Amino acid sequence: MFYQDGKLQYRVRVERPNPIFARALQQAIGGVEGEIRVMMQYLFQGWGARGPKKYRDMLINTGTEEIGHIEMLATAVALNLEGAPLSMQEDVANDGVAGAVLGGMNLRHILSTGLGATPENCNGVPFNASHVYASGNLMADMYANVTAEATGRVLATRLYGMTDDPGMKDMLSFLIARDTMHQQQWLAVIEELGGSAGLPIPNSFPQSGEKNEFSYAYLGHHKDGTTIPSGRWTQGPSYDGKGQ
Amino acid sequence: MFYQDGKLQYRVRVERPNPIFARALQQAIGGVEGEIRVMMQYLFQGWGARGPKKYRDMLINTGTEEIGHIEMLATAVALNLEGAPLSMQEDVANDGVAGAVLGGMNLRHILSTGLGATPENCNGVPFNASHVYASGNLMADMYANVTAEATGRVLATRLYGMTDDPGMKDMLSFLIARDTMHQQQWLAVIEELGGSAGLPIPNSFPQSGEKNEFSYAYLGHHKDGTTIPSGRWTQGPSYDGKGQ
Amino acid sequence: MFYQDGKLQYRVRVERPNPIFARALQQAIGGVEGEIRVMMQYLFQGWGARGPKKYRDMLINTGTEEIGHIEMLATAVALNLEGAPLSMQEDVANDGVAGAVLGGMNLRHILSTGLGATPENCNGVPFNASHVYASGNLMADMYANVTAEATGRVLATRLYGMTDDPGMKDMLSFLIARDTMHQQQWLAVIEELGGSAGLPIPNSFPQSGEKNEFSYAYLGHHKDGTTIPSGRWTQGPSYDGKGQ
Amino acid sequence: MFYQDGKLQYRVRVERPNPIFARALQQAIGGVEGEIRVMMQYLFQGWGARGPKKYRDMLINTGTEEIGHIEMLATAVALNLEGAPLSMQEDVANDGVAGAVLGGMNLRHILSTGLGATPENCNGVPFNASHVYASGNLMADMYANVTAEATGRVLATRLYGMTDDPGMKDMLSFLIARDTMHQQQWLAVIEELGGSAGLPIPNSFPQSGEKNEFSYAYLGHHKDGTTIPSGRWTQGPSYDGKGQ
Amino acid sequence: MFYQDGKLQYRVRVERPNPIFARALQQAIGGVEGEIRVMMQYLFQGWGARGPKKYRDMLINTGTEEIGHIEMLATAVALNLEGAPLSMQEDVANDGVAGAVLGGMNLRHILSTGLGATPENCNGVPFNASHVYASGNLMADMYANVTAEATGRVLATRLYGMTDDPGMKDMLSFLIARDTMHQQQWLAVIEELGGSAGLPIPNSFPQSGEKNEFSYAYLGHHKDGTTIPSGRWTQGPSYDGKGQ
Amino acid sequence: MFYQDGKLQYRVRVERPNPIFARALQQAIGGVEGEIRVMMQYLFQGWGARGPKKYRDMLINTGTEEIGHIEMLATAVALNLEGAPLSMQEDVANDGVAGAVLGGMNLRHILSTGLGATPENCNGVPFNASHVYASGNLMADMYANVTAEATGRVLATRLYGMTDDPGMKDMLSFLIARDTMHQQQWLAVIEELGGSAGLPIPNSFPQSGEKNEFSYAYLGHHKDGTTIPSGRWTQGPSYDGKGQ
Ligand SMILES: [Ca+2]
Ligand SMILES: [Ca+2]
Ligand SMILES: [Ca+2]
Ligand SMILES: [Ca+2]
Ligand SMILES: [Ca+2]
Ligand SMILES: [Ca+2]
Repeated sequence: MFYQDGKLQYRVRVERPNPIFARALQQAIGGVEGEIRVMMQYLFQGWGARGPKKYRDMLINTGTEEIGHIEMLATAVALNLEGAPLSMQEDVANDGVAGAVLGGMNLRHILSTGLGATPENCNGVPFNASHVYASGNLMADMYANVTAEATGRVLATRLYGMTDDPGMKDMLSFLIARDTMHQQQWLAVIEELGGSAGLPIPNSFPQSGEKNEFSYAYLGHHKDGTTIPSGRWTQGPSYDGKGQ
Repeated sequence: MFYQDGKLQYRVRVERPNPIFARALQQAIGGVEGEIRVMMQYLFQGWGARGPKKYRDMLINTGTEEIGHIEMLATAVALNLEGAPLSMQEDVANDGVAGAVLGGMNLRHILSTGLGATPENCNGVPFNASHVYASGNLMADMYANVTAEATGRVLATRLYGMTDDPGMKDMLSFLIARDTMHQQQWLAVIEELGGSAGLPIPNSFPQSGEKNEFSYAYLGHHKDGTTIPSGRWTQGPSYDGKGQ
Repeated sequence: MFYQDGKLQYRVRVERPNPIFARALQQAIGGVEGEIRVMMQYLFQGWGARGPKKYRDMLINTGTEEIGHIEMLATAVALNLEGAPLSMQEDVANDGVAGAVLGGMNLRHILSTGLGATPENCNGVPFNASHVYASGNLMADMYANVTAEATGRVLATRLYGMTDDPGMKDMLSFLIARDTMHQQQWLAVIEELGGSAGLPIPNSFPQSGEKNEFSYAYLGHHKDGTTIPSGRWTQGPSYDGKGQ
Repeated sequence: MFYQDGKLQYRVRVERPNPIFARALQQAIGGVEGEIRVMMQYLFQGWGARGPKKYRDMLINTGTEEIGHIEMLATAVALNLEGAPLSMQEDVANDGVAGAVLGGMNLRHILSTGLGATPENCNGVPFNASHVYASGNLMADMYANVTAEATGRVLATRLYGMTDDPGMKDMLSFLIARDTMHQQQWLAVIEELGGSAGLPIPNSFPQSGEKNEFSYAYLGHHKDGTTIPSGRWTQGPSYDGKGQ
Repeated sequence: MFYQDGKLQYRVRVERPNPIFARALQQAIGGVEGEIRVMMQYLFQGWGARGPKKYRDMLINTGTEEIGHIEMLATAVALNLEGAPLSMQEDVANDGVAGAVLGGMNLRHILSTGLGATPENCNGVPFNASHVYASGNLMADMYANVTAEATGRVLATRLYGMTDDPGMKDMLSFLIARDTMHQQQWLAVIEELGGSAGLPIPNSFPQSGEKNEFSYAYLGHHKDGTTIPSGRWTQGPSYDGKGQ
Repeated sequence: MFYQDGKLQYRVRVERPNPIFARALQQAIGGVEGEIRVMMQYLFQGWGARGPKKYRDMLINTGTEEIGHIEMLATAVALNLEGAPLSMQEDVANDGVAGAVLGGMNLRHILSTGLGATPENCNGVPFNASHVYASGNLMADMYANVTAEATGRVLATRLYGMTDDPGMKDMLSFLIARDTMHQQQWLAVIEELGGSAGLPIPNSFPQSGEKNEFSYAYLGHHKDGTTIPSGRWTQGPSYDGKGQ
């Protein structure tokens, strides 16, 4: 069961509202790298977990934290929309800057929400729950979670670079820190599950069932069949200790 | 900020697992009448609320309850998938009942989740966040919420009628009760906001701005222009006291 | 069966074409608050109606009216696109106003339709028919319809405030009036169906089947369990006369 | 503006209701080959038409006919759902045939609509309006329309072969006939627009602007570069009389 | 099996990067008229082909060419994003032109890809594979393919008109030429399959099974039943030689 | 540029066609764990790569291999559909097994493709290109790729367990082996990029910009604030050597 206390996890301030930055922030709410996705992903992974209870607890706990991140970002979007140009009067139309602001906004921020956030990405594409990975295989799910926090942190640092508003930089520096932690967290589970001993994923399938001659060979699909640049993937021992 | 305690809001038991009922239950998770929708709808309405703080609190509070309903239903799906036929051996294929079960399942319950719930409807269509109504107009949103709880309760009673498992009936009787309450709750807000005095929605728009001769007239689009059956909508005073 | 006469239901004029307003108008065509949605919603409700024939007739009749609203808006989009900048010549790129217009347009209005409307919302997201509510329960559907006309009217008044083109204001004042009427119309059906006597929806389900102790209780999910602000929803008799 | 008369364009009867055939019929309503698509496609083509008025008239007129086809099919779905198994009592579960029927249904036909049609395809995927082709180029649109009626007729004949219900065969034989006519109709417009003289589409673009050496050459992307089977497309004059 | 050689099918140069043109180009990648669509459409048609092997070969061969077109366009998007404004510093915000560029971009080109292309259309709507037509009926599919190349060439010529960058015009003149060829190619298959002798599509269905009195009649759905403008579709012999 | 040779990468045989297994196989074509996704993901990552050319080459090369996997699976779907029941004659309806097969099929395999594969998942939901992760950050993308191959291999082993057809098991044992290899391959790139030295992702962002007190702390969102189960994520040094 879930509870709330009406406070934000971390303060959210905006000194100079910017409706186009409001649009950009939406990517962190409803984009594939965003918070709705991790919230639902961790919760569904937890609800479907059949192994040791501590993983279930941790997944649901961190999923719960992510709800609060959506809350912070939704608040940030609303604050950035304060004072947005709501109409196309002549002076706006003839003012390059104001006109660009109106044209560059997510118009649904005016038309559909009256200056509030939506569960959409920065292009106004609604979040689609097919992005929730909960495979029932904890190791596979942990890689999905590292991915989510890695692309999420990439996004958050780009948002950080896009704004020079001190309030927004402050909020993002908190969210970036949490992404750092969550990358650590899922890597820690991978270690607990045995690290490379867990490979290949799933490690429950007997490898006698696979065509082993294709399991550790890099195949070139170059037209002339010869020009394979070398890398760690063309040489050295395999990570599961079974191939070459 | 959000919290959890690892317990279910109400007990969830399944006596006779049924993978096809698991598929049906998905409609209450990820369908347009389902719990993901109300969770996100109430939370986004709350996060975008700019009026009296008590509405914001109530919306976020009830949105928080709905997360727990998803949790209950995800648990119910997992329990109904216990013992599902995982393969197409000859005996399943030749057994009408078992074959029908396998064919009638959401195969992603086997292939993608390993017997857990997904954020999808009963046909496996992922939840799409465009169904979150948060218009910035509280009165309009309350009608959206009554609709959500009305169609949600219709769905829950149909699920109740579809199963004869005592555990499932027990869980659904709880969720149905909450839908009853939530219908009451949103109607109460409509009353607080003035009821019919709030009409037409939005009541902030000066009616001098609308073509009043079309505001209270039922128009027939029958080919011959004459056969309009009468109803309350063709006669009697208007609900806002302004038309006929 | 359906017919048409090649005329618009109400005149559509544009004095100063504005391609960004064309984008905004798309929300009223293909947005969740728009005309494609109500058209399909009323028609599918009518086609699925199994009760008294007069409701079926009314639903199909008003659904038919809505097709004409899409037609009006599609015409308005096309007129607003007259004279749109079609290319990125240097003078456009260096002209803040013209550049903002081009950048703020739905580029599909140039690239995909050659200056015509699309069945999309203001962000270019195609209409998705999952928004058609036709539950088979007339009372539930009427609340869905009030919602549609309430959010639709909110949208139309925002579009009205966004433009200062007399032709567009004139067209919108007609559509706003029809939204007023349609709110009345669906409320009238709710009255005919018994109003609060129809609660909870569906009223065909015996309330003995629900956990009555949870049917009329507002539950707090506040972390500390005490801070429930009071409102009509925490006190007073229930609307169906059955709870407290 | 649009009108209706409450009648079906052609009779719809079902002798032996079949809920799985109801699911199949949905493809003709909300599938990419279905009637919602052609209705919206022809209407949007008409509303966006800027050329001779007679094409606009014809497009809107035939689009209007298609609304009636949705109506017929929605009626057929509802009739096929009469008597559908609504629950999973033990006797259904142990009865291979009845169990298969329940498992093979679109469960939303029970849960979401109460035995009515939805604007979805046979897998329950909602119609998505991105399938509406209205390019502003009449010739391109006519090929899109031939495609729609060709795939639509393929679908209808497959539905015809799938059922042995005389009522359903009768209804489908009408819809198939209309598809025949509509194929003719769009081919007639192509002829009026000049047939091969209209090639390449669009013929308004000066061919000096294209790399002519690539305009009439079939290119092989076979790995060894030699094995191109010959066909009309590797030899003979081009259809626009400009290539070889 | 597939191969590549790391080269582009035709050179791609950009003299003056333009992030808004990068957005426009996305329509040719992930739009319904774009290259992902034809690639998947031709490949799936080929993979599902059960008739003469030469059609299968040709479909897969041309589908393979289309992968290279996506590659060219993805390269063009990346080149047009060079030097895009990545942040909202004060000088950008106060510079109408630079501000318009930032507002008019697909912000995912900054936030999600770090200046690379996405499989989306010009509005950032992801490609949806429901647009892949592969009906199993070769004649119907050929009309779908002519449609794809016709709307694709319309799009490419509009992009050509939108830019004055010599490199982009050069690349587009190549893609336009290929669209010309592919229109020819699919029309050639229609001729090989018998042209009008293949009508109506599918021609395998015995026309005794359709209501012939409706197969060659243009029906008016005008309200007053009289105003049918004449055209080739109201008079003259039918194209299949069977109607009037 | 791309090439093909008309052969399959590995043989595809089906001894006992099974239309329900054809539906299951669709998940490996158009599901989020499937081959369309990895094909597009690796190609778009390669096309957008701005670093050392060898990564670009490898990504495009392996993306090219994946096209051939779609080809194999599309062939497998078509072979499994041989002999599918195409109609609902009385004997099928009364035969539990045959009826279950028909009801359990993707009906689009009959109605839309005439017994061929579609670019959809096992529930008939079309592939949506928003699942293509190409962030411009190679490390983040490698984790996305490990995830794709991990969930892909989980899926393939589940399909392997679902069938007892020797041909299908043979084909899957090849695809499983390739998934094993591709997991190794992306892990090798992570090693080449520095492994944990690349953390946190992106490592280009100065950590002075994040709130370091939140970067390495596991936060409990338990209602009572005390019940954090311990794990590697609550103790021990951080993976990037910067936290505790
Ligand atoms: Ca987060
Ligand atoms: Ca609920
Ligand atoms: Ca309307
Ligand atoms: Ca039709
Ligand atoms: Ca092409
Ligand atoms: Ca693969």
